[in-house]
This record gives sequence, C-alpha cells and structure tokens, in this order.
Amino acid sequence: MSAALDLERTTRIDLPRLLRRIAMLGDVGAIEGGGVCRLALTDEDRAGRDLVVSWMRELGLAVSVDGIGNVVGVRAGREDLPPVMTGSHIDTVRTGGRYDGNLGVLAGLEVIAALDDAGIVTRRPLAVAFFTNEEGARFAPDMMGSLVFQGDLPLQQALDTRGIDGTTVGENLARIGYAGPAPVGRHRVHAFVELHVEQGPVLEHEDIAIGAVTGVQGIHWSEFTVEGTSNHAGTTPMRLRHDAGLVAARVACFVRDLSRELGGAQLATVGQVQCFPNLVNVIPSRAVFTVDLRNTDGTALAEAVQRTLAYAQDVAKTEGVRLSRRTLADFAPVAFDAGMVDRVEAIARRHGHSVRRMPSGAGHDAQILARMCPAGMIFVPSVAGLSHNVAELTHDRDIQAGADVLLDLMLELAA
Amino acid sequence: MSAALDLERTTRIDLPRLLRRIAMLGDVGAIEGGGVCRLALTDEDRAGRDLVVSWMRELGLAVSVDGIGNVVGVRAGREDLPPVMTGSHIDTVRTGGRYDGNLGVLAGLEVIAALDDAGIVTRRPLAVAFFTNEEGARFAPDMMGSLVFQGDLPLQQALDTRGIDGTTVGENLARIGYAGPAPVGRHRVHAFVELHVEQGPVLEHEDIAIGAVTGVQGIHWSEFTVEGTSNHAGTTPMRLRHDAGLVAARVACFVRDLSRELGGAQLATVGQVQCFPNLVNVIPSRAVFTVDLRNTDGTALAEAVQRTLAYAQDVAKTEGVRLSRRTLADFAPVAFDAGMVDRVEAIARRHGHSVRRMPSGAGHDAQILARMCPAGMIFVPSVAGLSHNVAELTHDRDIQAGADVLLDLMLELAA
Repeated sequence: MSAALDLERTTRIDLPRLLRRIAMLGDVGAIEGGGVCRLALTDEDRAGRDLVVSWMRELGLAVSVDGIGNVVGVRAGREDLPPVMTGSHIDTVRTGGRYDGNLGVLAGLEVIAALDDAGIVTRRPLAVAFFTNEEGARFAPDMMGSLVFQGDLPLQQALDTRGIDGTTVGENLARIGYAGPAPVGRHRVHAFVELHVEQGPVLEHEDIAIGAVTGVQGIHWSEFTVEGTSNHAGTTPMRLRHDAGLVAARVACFVRDLSRELGGAQLATVGQVQCFPNLVNVIPSRAVFTVDLRNTDGTALAEAVQRTLAYAQDVAKTEGVRLSRRTLADFAPVAFDAGMVDRVEAIARRHGHSVRRMPSGAGHDAQILARMCPAGMIFVPSVAGLSHNVAELTHDRDIQAGADVLLDLMLELAA
Repeated sequence: MSAALDLERTTRIDLPRLLRRIAMLGDVGAIEGGGVCRLALTDEDRAGRDLVVSWMRELGLAVSVDGIGNVVGVRAGREDLPPVMTGSHIDTVRTGGRYDGNLGVLAGLEVIAALDDAGIVTRRPLAVAFFTNEEGARFAPDMMGSLVFQGDLPLQQALDTRGIDGTTVGENLARIGYAGPAPVGRHRVHAFVELHVEQGPVLEHEDIAIGAVTGVQGIHWSEFTVEGTSNHAGTTPMRLRHDAGLVAARVACFVRDLSRELGGAQLATVGQVQCFPNLVNVIPSRAVFTVDLRNTDGTALAEAVQRTLAYAQDVAKTEGVRLSRRTLADFAPVAFDAGMVDRVEAIARRHGHSVRRMPSGAGHDAQILARMCPAGMIFVPSVAGLSHNVAELTHDRDIQAGADVLLDLMLELAA
C-alpha cells in the first residue's frame, strides 16, 4: 500500500504513446477534415473494436465481450475484488471527432501501460471498458451498451432495436462478430471513472484545465411523425392545405423560443428533419423530426417536454394533420458521487492544475454506471467547444493533464 | 371545309381506347397506391417514351426527336402549313398520378385516331408532342423541354443542367437514347392547345365539367443554402449556436404567414428540406431548402419573393450563419390568347357542358408555347383536387368531355 502510494506521486502517463493510439484509432473511419465516422456496429466500428481489443491483449488484459458487444479488459489486482473500472465508447456520430469517447478508452489503456512500466500492481483489479452505441446516432437510445451492462435495459429489447437503416442491433452485432458470451446486468464494479472531452466551450473560455463533473443534465429525445396530405403546390389554396413540413418547422421554431423563455440551462435542438416526398412543388405529406431537450433541472425539463408536446398537438390540429410521437431517450438529471467529485478536484489541484466543478451537458456512460457504483468524470477542454464535428480538438497538454488525473484517481480507488 | 365541319359535329373520341392507353402508360413506373414514378430521363421515363412513340408510329405519324428529347408526331394536312399542335408531358413527380401530363398527350393521340376512323383530313397538319422534363422534379427549371423547343432556353445550358442525383440532362438523354437530331428553337406552330387535369379542387367543388384556362399564375422557385456550425446539442449554450436548420424552419413559417398576409391568390410552399448531418444530437451545420411562390398577380409575386429573401437574410444574420440563394425557376404570369379562351368556352357549351374561365395554378408547357403562337388550355376536374399524389383521379366522363372539346378545337384551328 505505502509503496504504491509513494510511486503514485511520480508515475505519469506516456503522452506520445497515448497520442499515437489516438491517431491510429482516428484513422479508422477517418473522414475529410480530420474527423471520424464510426457509427455503432458498422464495418468501421468493427475495425475500431478489433484495433482496441488487440491493444488490450498486448497489455495482457483478460478481455470479455458481452451480449450487447460491450468489451471489458481486466488487469488482475492483488486481491480478487470488484474492479475499479474506467472507459467510455469508441462509436462516433456521422461527423464525429477523434477524441469524443475514444480519449476515455485509450487513456484507460495508457493508465494500464504506465502502471505496467512502473511495475505497480494495485490491490483491486483495474478494468478498461468500451460500451456499445453510446452515441445513439444509429440506434436509439444512446448509452445503450452501458444500460444493458448495468441492467436497466433488457438485452433482448436492445438487440431488437431497429436503426435508421432499418436493421437491428442484434443483426449488426452478429454480422461484425461482437455478440459475445459474457453475461450482462449482474456485474459488481467498485467504482467507475470516465475521462472525456468537455464537448462545450466552458473550460476553454475560463482557461481551466480540468473539470470535476458534478453530474449530467437530464436528456429527453422525441421523434415526431406528422402525416398530412401530399398535393400540388400551385393549385391547392392555402386554406385547404395539410402540410406536414410546416408543422415540423413550427415546432422547431417553438422549441428555440421556449428555450429562451425558460432560460437557465434549458437546451433545445431539432437536429433531424425529413420531409416526404421532398420535392419543390409538392406539399409534404409526411415529416419526421426529432426534438432534443436537456436541462440540469429535472422539473424544468419535464415542463419543456410537456409544453413542446402540447404545442405540437395544437399546431397539428390547426393544420389538420395527424401527429404521433415516440420517446427515443429519457434520462433524468444525474448527480455523481460527492466523494468522487472531491477526489477529482483534489488530485487536479495536487497536480497544479486549475479545476472547476461543472455539470455535463452531454450524456455519458458514467451516468448509467452511477446507478450501480460510485461514479465520476474528469473533463478536459474542447477547443472552441466543438464536438460532434470533424474539427473537434483537445490540446496535447490537456490530454496529458486529464490522463494523469485519471491515473492517480484509479490508483486511489484501487488501493 | 364544309364537309369537315359537318363531320365535326358527330365525330367523337373513343373513350375505351383512350382509357386503355392511359392504363398502359400508367403501368410504366407504377408505384403503390395507383400512382406513377417516372422522373424525367430515368429508365422508367424511357420505357414510357418508347411506348408512346410506338403508338405514334402505329398511327402513322412522322415522329421526330429533338436535342432536348422532345418528341413530336405529325399527321400531314391537305396543305403544307405550320401545324396545329397539342400535347403535354409524360414525366411525373416522384409520387405522381397517371393523368397529369399523360392525359394531354394520349388525348392528342386519340384525336388523331378518331379522325383516322372518321376519314377526316384537316387542312393544316396536326401534331402531338410530349416535352421533356415538364415537372422539374429531377432537373430545374420545370418546363425545360418546351423552353428549349420555343427557344428561350439555350440547348447547351439545358443539357448541362445537373439534377438532384448530380448527373446532367445531357448524360441522361444520351443514356436513354433520346438525344435526337431535330433542331430546336426555330419552329413554326399555328396554334397550341393542351388538355390537362386541373390539379386543384375548383371545378369539382363547383360541379363544372370544363375549365377554359385564361392564363397561368407566375411561379418563382428559390433554393436556399444555409451554412452554420455543427456542434453538440447538449453542450452548446443556446446563445452560441449557429443552427442552419433553425433558419430553414423560420423561413418555412414566414412564407406561410406571408401568404396569409398578402392574401388573394398568393401561394407559398416549402416542399424540400435537407439538414446535415441530420442527427438527433447534432446542431445542423447545413440546411438546403426550397421556396415555391406563386401568384396570378406579378407585382404581388415580386413582393413575396423580395420579402422572403429579406426575411431569410435577416434571420440568417441573427443566427450568425451564411445564406445563399439561387433561382430554380422564374415565370411571370401568362395570359392565354383571348380567341383561344373564347373557342374553348364556346365548344364546351355547344357540347352541353358546364364551363368556367379560370387561371391555372400549375405551370404548363402551353404557357411557354404561348410565347410563339396562340395557345390555350382545357381543364377537366381532379377528384378532391388531388395531384402530384398517387391518388390523383379524373372521372371517365370528364376525360370524354375534355378530349371531345380538344378534338373539336383542333378541327376548328386546323380548318
């Protein structure tokens, strides 16, 4: 114990090695502009998985794959106890960056490698995981893998989920060879920590190196489908129209205005819109669009969800169209374990970094793991706040700082 | 002459034969629900063209194909004069019906067949034409073929036009074998008449059999492209967003509200919207959308165009995004030849039909031909006003009435 704590003060991660892995994984599914497209369970995702698994094996980790494709690599401890786990995800959105998710997984591997180099064996086992379909860009809900891992989403329900291309999670898992035998929903984890890029502008704006994440804002995703009447744009009087596209547009404007009215931390985004038949001179018969609402305040979020639905129903009635809605994701705000937030803050200060407590604007696997064990997160700055964007960037010095905090945090938790 | 006029009173079209041809052409590119998808210059369009050309040849017409793929079949008259022409188009929108355009072409063939049956030869030649890409659903502008035929659109410019799938008109014409040798832009046509379904609800609503079309409303199509910044929906404060999709939504709402404010015959439609990357949790970086504005009053239409652009620029500035616009189509209101409108009305009354003068809400090839010769149109009712819709329908009795009026009108004009 005391030997480990002594060493801890001097053990640091190897930045070039970590950067090399980030670059190599970023080359898998690379797209123009420096970004990455590795939608969950595509061929690109498989290639990324294969690469990370090969690194896990090189590091001597015991690799297991569960029924939803989550991959966990375990480094044995001196005692056979529930592990201290870190990790994140390696799937991306269609125009993703190379840090989102990937940094957390690869920093976890780097922690293992650095401990190997230093000859340190912890009391508790250490585990590095990457969870399936965190982004939800191809299959809803997001954070699917961690939800199945933790137990709140039944495996079969997840496997039956149909994605944007009409195929299921189960089919795709089988196709890419990641429907593994490890059981889900009955894990014991001592603690979970996740290093992640902020994906927002706050840390950079305030020139702070480390964010000690206090929790995650609540998230509510709806998909609305509007069914109107397709008709000729030149011969149908305005009063006789049943324009599905107009209802989508009205709701998009409404949620923007609502976010301003509610103020505070309320966010509202219409990211996806599709009109049918989508021709210049045909009134849209059908529109499908999504509304992403987020707030750190659960009550305000519920109000936003409720008012959006009421407005959509109202405007659909006025236009004489049918409206239906389904919930794609619904996560209440999460508060991370207070002791974990304290530890992140203390370690960052000990390393001489500026640090601030802050909520997370995005959803993360750590918020699901928080249902089964003490969980926490470390944020590092995103240049210009850009994320879900090919230009996503975190500076090398911030990667070093974040990964070193992760290393010490895992050492403390595993002691 | 007097022999022809005597026979005219008893010569009628053969409805079952006409309906058979409508059904056979409707089977080419048939889609679920009884509709047709024969976008201009696709394989389906080629198959439809081949069928109609085979009928033209069966009727002994002299068939020519020009450089933009317009097909004209000519029946010789007693004198070598400019022909009386009828026709329309056989391309459809993606979710089109089987009458729009097709009726006018096939009724023209039926007029020829009925005159053959009755052994009538007219003084002037008669011609039946179908013009390329009237709909503009794949290549803008619409009425492309008639514009090239008439001479206001240079052939090369039309051939270089790139469609929604990135390929050009020229490539596709060559591919389907309809880049013909006949010259364009130097035709002499004595008169042009087009039978068409109303595509709106007015005739059915007033229980009137025949519309004597007085003109065509002005049409203005814009395509707007908005360039914002793609960013994470959960971490980007509302005040820092540059949401391209929101601008599209605001403009869609604006043009609807503007049409109400301007009132009268002002129509406004946003039929096409595409957002990128089109994901639930990513703020759209790019939105491309169209605005279709129409009015019988050219001054009011110009005001609508101007105010829409000003609003779009304004809202783009507020959102901090770049906006560009291109004109896809721009047609001033057209008034048809007064003598032609009188003839349609008089013939319809002589046949015992109810008739009303009315403007056309949709654009038609006849409005382009009106620049080179006296032109007119005959409308027949559309059930429930549906058009550009698979459920498009015109009752058999109305088809009979319209085709018989067309026959007598062509006989009068060719005398």
